[in-house]
Amino acid sequence: MPYVKIQITREGATRDQKAQLIRGATDLLVQVLDKDPATTFVVIEEVETDHWGIAGETVAVLRERAKRGTGP
Amino acid sequence: MPYVKIQITREGATRDQKAQLIRGATDLLVQVLDKDPATTFVVIEEVETDHWGIAGETVAVLRERAKRGTGP
Amino acid sequence: MPYVKIQITREGATRDQKAQLIRGATDLLVQVLDKDPATTFVVIEEVETDHWGIAGETVAVLRERAKRGTGP
Amino acid sequence: MPYVKIQITREGATRDQKAQLIRGATDLLVQVLDKDPATTFVVIEEVETDHWGIAGETVAVLRERAKRGTGP
Amino acid sequence: MPYVKIQITREGATRDQKAQLIRGATDLLVQVLDKDPATTFVVIEEVETDHWGIAGETVAVLRERAKRGTGP
Amino acid sequence: MPYVKIQITREGATRDQKAQLIRGATDLLVQVLDKDPATTFVVIEEVETDHWGIAGETVAVLRERAKRGTGP
Repeated sequence: MPYVKIQITREGATRDQKAQLIRGATDLLVQVLDKDPATTFVVIEEVETDHWGIAGETVAVLRERAKRGTGP
Repeated sequence: MPYVKIQITREGATRDQKAQLIRGATDLLVQVLDKDPATTFVVIEEVETDHWGIAGETVAVLRERAKRGTGP
Repeated sequence: MPYVKIQITREGATRDQKAQLIRGATDLLVQVLDKDPATTFVVIEEVETDHWGIAGETVAVLRERAKRGTGP
Repeated sequence: MPYVKIQITREGATRDQKAQLIRGATDLLVQVLDKDPATTFVVIEEVETDHWGIAGETVAVLRERAKRGTGP
Repeated sequence: MPYVKIQITREGATRDQKAQLIRGATDLLVQVLDKDPATTFVVIEEVETDHWGIAGETVAVLRERAKRGTGP
Repeated sequence: MPYVKIQITREGATRDQKAQLIRGATDLLVQVLDKDPATTFVVIEEVETDHWGIAGETVAVLRERAKRGTGP
């Protein structure tokens, strides 16, 4: 009866890619722990890039900086 | 001081139904564990049907298949 | 296909009370949104009182202060 | 390697305020536990006021009542 | 910068199986979305069987019933 | 009415350090968003090092390797 949450930044993942994540996470639980897929939930949460921080900065800022080609 | 998260697929729950979920979950904590409602939080999260998977498929696909009347 | 998480402080809830929470939360989703109980998950998380804070203090400290009968 | 989730009601927090939350939460983990900011994630989740309940009522209703100046 | 949470019942998953879950979930994010493994977190949460409910009953009760070979 | 979850590996954080995290996170919400501390929850979750993965490996393995002084 597993529940898997996959949290990613909202940066263009397609419907097909999300379906692959759901399929893949379910298969993983079935293969490793012999879980029943019928009661395996996978939930994807997309988070805006200005709502996700790493190293004290938003991903939005990190992406802008990377585009401009300035460090770090 | 309970915190309750209710995660459902986004499929047309009304504002009134959400208020009923919040009222009902709060009452449950009060009745069963004598919790103080003033510090009982209930948060509802609606998840798109192509972000929720069960049995390795998205709910969006399951709903489309059910509409077409084809198995499983 | 709802998923409900109930987070409470670990302060002596019995196995029977937890079963009541699970039953009650499931019934709530069935009654309000006509969800299928067979795919309704309820997960209870008990949190140590020194891991839960409110108003900037741990519940452990608040409980100790309440026992001593001192404010606020 | 901390992961911090900050859940707030969606009531007008600005992009700059969110950046401050991310910066502040990261600094807190660095100062208190000497964590590496490069592997410290902070995720902000904004929740609609009719999806957040306290004392059995939605924040949306509480805000409307406060505006009208009627108790409690 | 994905964050994956895998919630399972505590029913004897070994340290090696948990390592496989972590490896597999990370590979999935790399393969499907080209994410950087260095900033991919996977967190496993084991939940006691009397803290997890499905169909209104705890997994603990369901397991006991299955052992006794009685329905439903 | 914020809810903050701080998830860290279980590696010896003291009760005092946890109280500092709770105090600091509450202050942050008060200072940045003028939130009421009386309805600000902070919950700390400690995760075993073999339940937390980064770059496809458990923190337990990374810590052991670091102790032995072998790369990467």
